[in-house]
Amino acid sequence: MSRSVMMSDLSWPEYKRRLEEEDAIILLPVGAVEQHGYHLPLGTDWIMATEMSRRAAERVGGIVAPPVMYAYKSQIRSGGGNHYCGTTSLDGASLIEMVRDVLKEFARHGARKIAVIDGHYENEFFLTEACDLAVRDLRYDGVTDVRILKMRYCEEISDEVLEIAYPAGYPGLALEHGAVLETSMMLHLFPHLVDVSKISDDPPADFPPYDLYPGNPDWVPPSGCLAPAHGSSAEIGKMLVDEFTDLVSGALEAQFRTAQTAAERKVS
Amino acid sequence: MSRSVMMSDLSWPEYKRRLEEEDAIILLPVGAVEQHGYHLPLGTDWIMATEMSRRAAERVGGIVAPPVMYAYKSQIRSGGGNHYCGTTSLDGASLIEMVRDVLKEFARHGARKIAVIDGHYENEFFLTEACDLAVRDLRYDGVTDVRILKMRYCEEISDEVLEIAYPAGYPGLALEHGAVLETSMMLHLFPHLVDVSKISDDPPADFPPYDLYPGNPDWVPPSGCLAPAHGSSAEIGKMLVDEFTDLVSGALEAQFRTAQTAAERKVS
Amino acid sequence: MSRSVMMSDLSWPEYKRRLEEEDAIILLPVGAVEQHGYHLPLGTDWIMATEMSRRAAERVGGIVAPPVMYAYKSQIRSGGGNHYCGTTSLDGASLIEMVRDVLKEFARHGARKIAVIDGHYENEFFLTEACDLAVRDLRYDGVTDVRILKMRYCEEISDEVLEIAYPAGYPGLALEHGAVLETSMMLHLFPHLVDVSKISDDPPADFPPYDLYPGNPDWVPPSGCLAPAHGSSAEIGKMLVDEFTDLVSGALEAQFRTAQTAAERKVS
Amino acid sequence: MSRSVMMSDLSWPEYKRRLEEEDAIILLPVGAVEQHGYHLPLGTDWIMATEMSRRAAERVGGIVAPPVMYAYKSQIRSGGGNHYCGTTSLDGASLIEMVRDVLKEFARHGARKIAVIDGHYENEFFLTEACDLAVRDLRYDGVTDVRILKMRYCEEISDEVLEIAYPAGYPGLALEHGAVLETSMMLHLFPHLVDVSKISDDPPADFPPYDLYPGNPDWVPPSGCLAPAHGSSAEIGKMLVDEFTDLVSGALEAQFRTAQTAAERKVS
Amino acid sequence: MSRSVMMSDLSWPEYKRRLEEEDAIILLPVGAVEQHGYHLPLGTDWIMATEMSRRAAERVGGIVAPPVMYAYKSQIRSGGGNHYCGTTSLDGASLIEMVRDVLKEFARHGARKIAVIDGHYENEFFLTEACDLAVRDLRYDGVTDVRILKMRYCEEISDEVLEIAYPAGYPGLALEHGAVLETSMMLHLFPHLVDVSKISDDPPADFPPYDLYPGNPDWVPPSGCLAPAHGSSAEIGKMLVDEFTDLVSGALEAQFRTAQTAAERKVS
Amino acid sequence: MSRSVMMSDLSWPEYKRRLEEEDAIILLPVGAVEQHGYHLPLGTDWIMATEMSRRAAERVGGIVAPPVMYAYKSQIRSGGGNHYCGTTSLDGASLIEMVRDVLKEFARHGARKIAVIDGHYENEFFLTEACDLAVRDLRYDGVTDVRILKMRYCEEISDEVLEIAYPAGYPGLALEHGAVLETSMMLHLFPHLVDVSKISDDPPADFPPYDLYPGNPDWVPPSGCLAPAHGSSAEIGKMLVDEFTDLVSGALEAQFRTAQTAAERKVS
Repeated sequence: MSRSVMMSDLSWPEYKRRLEEEDAIILLPVGAVEQHGYHLPLGTDWIMATEMSRRAAERVGGIVAPPVMYAYKSQIRSGGGNHYCGTTSLDGASLIEMVRDVLKEFARHGARKIAVIDGHYENEFFLTEACDLAVRDLRYDGVTDVRILKMRYCEEISDEVLEIAYPAGYPGLALEHGAVLETSMMLHLFPHLVDVSKISDDPPADFPPYDLYPGNPDWVPPSGCLAPAHGSSAEIGKMLVDEFTDLVSGALEAQFRTAQTAAERKVS
Repeated sequence: MSRSVMMSDLSWPEYKRRLEEEDAIILLPVGAVEQHGYHLPLGTDWIMATEMSRRAAERVGGIVAPPVMYAYKSQIRSGGGNHYCGTTSLDGASLIEMVRDVLKEFARHGARKIAVIDGHYENEFFLTEACDLAVRDLRYDGVTDVRILKMRYCEEISDEVLEIAYPAGYPGLALEHGAVLETSMMLHLFPHLVDVSKISDDPPADFPPYDLYPGNPDWVPPSGCLAPAHGSSAEIGKMLVDEFTDLVSGALEAQFRTAQTAAERKVS
Repeated sequence: MSRSVMMSDLSWPEYKRRLEEEDAIILLPVGAVEQHGYHLPLGTDWIMATEMSRRAAERVGGIVAPPVMYAYKSQIRSGGGNHYCGTTSLDGASLIEMVRDVLKEFARHGARKIAVIDGHYENEFFLTEACDLAVRDLRYDGVTDVRILKMRYCEEISDEVLEIAYPAGYPGLALEHGAVLETSMMLHLFPHLVDVSKISDDPPADFPPYDLYPGNPDWVPPSGCLAPAHGSSAEIGKMLVDEFTDLVSGALEAQFRTAQTAAERKVS
Repeated sequence: MSRSVMMSDLSWPEYKRRLEEEDAIILLPVGAVEQHGYHLPLGTDWIMATEMSRRAAERVGGIVAPPVMYAYKSQIRSGGGNHYCGTTSLDGASLIEMVRDVLKEFARHGARKIAVIDGHYENEFFLTEACDLAVRDLRYDGVTDVRILKMRYCEEISDEVLEIAYPAGYPGLALEHGAVLETSMMLHLFPHLVDVSKISDDPPADFPPYDLYPGNPDWVPPSGCLAPAHGSSAEIGKMLVDEFTDLVSGALEAQFRTAQTAAERKVS
Repeated sequence: MSRSVMMSDLSWPEYKRRLEEEDAIILLPVGAVEQHGYHLPLGTDWIMATEMSRRAAERVGGIVAPPVMYAYKSQIRSGGGNHYCGTTSLDGASLIEMVRDVLKEFARHGARKIAVIDGHYENEFFLTEACDLAVRDLRYDGVTDVRILKMRYCEEISDEVLEIAYPAGYPGLALEHGAVLETSMMLHLFPHLVDVSKISDDPPADFPPYDLYPGNPDWVPPSGCLAPAHGSSAEIGKMLVDEFTDLVSGALEAQFRTAQTAAERKVS
Repeated sequence: MSRSVMMSDLSWPEYKRRLEEEDAIILLPVGAVEQHGYHLPLGTDWIMATEMSRRAAERVGGIVAPPVMYAYKSQIRSGGGNHYCGTTSLDGASLIEMVRDVLKEFARHGARKIAVIDGHYENEFFLTEACDLAVRDLRYDGVTDVRILKMRYCEEISDEVLEIAYPAGYPGLALEHGAVLETSMMLHLFPHLVDVSKISDDPPADFPPYDLYPGNPDWVPPSGCLAPAHGSSAEIGKMLVDEFTDLVSGALEAQFRTAQTAAERKVS
């Protein structure tokens, strides 16, 4: 067995050894099964969250748990909406409960440094609740020294990268669904899953400042992309992947691998 | 009985009459019971959501349902965190279920135009789920013509207002907790609930790009305000209240009071 | 900021100070949004529960938390039934969970003396369960010294008052929905919310000794009042308000403000 | 197989035949496993609810489903409290869900006339919710013609019987726990389960007008009986059993076996 | 009161005394209300589970709690399916929650030796979950010395008995629904509930190696028996009852009544 | 994009096209993250379920949805127990809800032929419940033509294969955890994930005929394998993989790709 950081590849004694001897950080990738336009695959979100977790795990001494692939419902204004064929989502409570259970299991294994790495915007608050409830249940069990870090792998993007990726101006993370960022990253990492010939000419979406239930499909460009993917490239993708790998592994280092006090930890 | 737009003030025949004869829009304010620094009261979020709903209701022919006052847990990076004394929150599932039930009741009354007006950042996705599940349950019951609009009353702020309110630069909505916007609005609307002498000199919060569970109270300025409130004024408050009243009532007009097609509706 | 007993009006440091320095009792009013005939408003139950809590809080050193306004489904034989337009109710589980969460938050704040003051008959056992589950969860967390008192503000009425309010004989609390007691109290406290000209001439309801699901609306007088409200007056209302204020504050004093042993506490 | 009215004794074709050919009413007894003093058995509530259901079923053409034996938590002021050894109770949600499921199954079988016969005070509102949710789920399934009657078998007691049973005055149903009524009925029906030599001399309970959580065991007489059982007799028991059999079968006849319109049905 | 082992027959002091002085084992029978062909009653599963528990309880010093009669949905390939009229089942979650609650109550009573005796194949994993969750909740409460044994009363059958019962070869436990084993046991124990004249001539069921949802009723012989009951007899029944009584009481003795270490306990 | 059968690899239009034009069957693999001895990886169950689904999908025109990797708790007598480090499981309700949601999404996409392919023994009844509840919810939505086939990929093994794999006699599927079957299949398919040098010499497990909660780890061989894996080989693995591929694709063909009537379908 080669030196894999993927939990599924490890025997239980090896997994246990890394927790005990290497103080391994457990990374739980969370993605989605969600339409990403004509040119990207349905698995984009969980594939990227897993790959970014893997890269960070290799840097910081981590183990990547099997990803949460089914996740919260795509919303019109951030992911095109849950009416698309192929988008496959969970009720909020189902996602909360699954992640809550899994986090508690890692703690039972002895893990005290856990990270939830999210790649799907709509998951955020359900993951928040899962972390909060796992911490509460663990406290009921007398376990109070677990720390769970939760972040989106793309929480911050530098202006330098944005200027290169979006020479005409960045539309904002809200519209980055199936657009230049995701397409470029996939072109860099998994080009065989991208069909650039299918990139849509849809204009960027223009949403009112509210949501509607049931959602109105007419608000969304037919492709499901909220901003154009033209201009994507593997080069831009590499820049983003490198930047996000730094971001995630930097956060894990800062929180779990330094001797800073809690108060110092917040200082940039 | 004077012409109140508050549902609690109406007899059931009058409530029914407004739904049937005036095609009234039901507005459900959602807030929080949450610390807002040394100078603002715990009820700030639900008080503001209710008042903004009331103002919009008067313009568009609405009825303001009793507010959801207890809501989702304050988070460190957006509301100071749920460890504060006084902050009183619900589990995500509790909030989802309560709002889901209430929305279905409005539909049973005959309401077909419903708006959820949120004044607490952390509620967003739990309200999303509540709306989605209410629509699903109603569909099970054969009711498919209900439309629920959901928005934050402060979803958009004009640059003009921001420049006046924040002459030194806007820190972003994420840090607008107990700061100039909320303080100014409260000074305009409910000055007796504000104690300007208690405004804290805490510097703005500076958070890492991730969340931690359990949260680290050291990340938060002692007052609980994420940005300074100095410079707040009733004048700024009036500008904001007017702008947000326009925003909410404009959204309701656009969605519920015009003859536009669904496709046209999204054009600004 | 004036000396308000309403939690929503207090800053978090003032709320904390009252708990720590004044050993404040937290009162949680629970009401309903429910039809109350042609002449009383939909908010009657939560408005009254809140006002009675406020009066008791002022006497015993209490803080009134924001009321639970949406509550359990009105029943045919005690509230006219949940089929009325305007009556807006929760599933039992939703009410249990919301109140359970809120009670646990008060305990987290440091409160050890909590009172649930109910103004809606149908809530009783769901509040019982909420209290029981909150106590259990707190015990899981190692907190065993919280005491929650639960009562209806009108749990007992003196014969003297009943004779005055009902010269022709008291129909029993079961039929006191939108009738002389509630109408009189509202006339005393919030006369602008009562329209005496709309008091119905419906005869008192006459129910069989069982419930039926789905309920039969024909069992209920059209107005929704289960007994006539004629004879109501602000004077009767004042007597009732005074009596119930004594009742609630007396219970709080007896349980929370005396040095009696637990055994002595039960003796009238 | 003799002519049993107990569902558990019937083969499925016979059960089906009675529903189809005899339009059988399904009776679901609900009781409790709860302390009943030193002299009555833990099963008193479910045993009585089942026996009263059986007697009514024989009169009105009913089938008695297996009883719900575990039910809602005993309360201090109505059943002595859930701290007793032997009292074995469910969370409210567990009871709601179990009864909801069972009621829906009867409807799937083709039953359209269903009765829930309760013998334990604390169950009432959880049964209400179970009936309400079953009706809702059935409506989702397109089934709208089921009627569920819910009652306590002892909902009404005549003054004649009370005078004989309680020559010194009736303490009220609230304190009738392990007292003259239950003891007498058990003496009439199941004397081998009663040990009259163990009847306690505890005085009647004297409760304050509120509940406390966690409950205070000192409020309850040591035996667990809330009123004395002295004076109980099989003769009084027979009167009660006959009266309650009339009450239950009368309600079933009135609701399910007459041609009255719904409106007429309510007239006594 | 005679020396009954049935919990429902005992007063609370006697129940308590047996737990404290006799270290009684609590047995919880779990059955079903389920079709068992033309010749066996709907209650077969819970009746048998209760009777086998009673026999074991008498041998090992046990108390038989009221049985769980309503249980998990009959499946096509093991019980004929849940589409039969008369089969009355619970959702999985409802069964889990009910049993979880009841197990925790036994522990609150002071019981530390608890056995769940199952007589319905489909219940198995829901009982597993109920036991697991009860143990977890008790751990939250600081109770860690409870042991719950769970078994089917017919977990093992000797070849000797099978050869006599099935001279032409045993079809396997999967098809033993309403067939020779159950019929013979009922003939031995409760012959008045068996109508041998109604035994079906249906051939044994022949199922594909998968389940289908919704189930296909055509897969099941019309009677609902999955294998023929011809050849059943009270004599075979007695052999089985004796063998299973040995099996259950032997398991209880081995686990709860011997001084073996945990490691030794597993050796046959 | 090559012709992948993995849903995550497909764009939404391609996924939609296959459902509409090719009447694709959706296969949902369900596995576990569970210890499999010293020599097999934690992901064995989900890896195998996914691979067997992929092979069947290629034969029958299927699409393999992302696998459910976290699943129900390992049991002592079938998987070694949930106390192992690395075994990562869900509560039963969490698994039910997740799978229920996902199945309903496939139906929303237009899929009418769905298969749940299980590779972890303990999942069975929770998947049963998920299928049953999904069918019920879909029925509420008016969708009644979905068919869900559920099976273990190893539901049947031929005697020929067993004789080769187990020359000394087959211990039964119950003990096949980390033993010859799983090891051989992994050696054939994913040899880089097997470390044959670590195969344990533990004797086969010998369990009593009951379960215990909390489980007794002493019952389980230290490795976690319930039967020895010695004698495993890629050749045996190939035989098994071929046989199970035939079994699964045969079931899908029989149920979804033939014109047989429902009644004929069951005949072998």
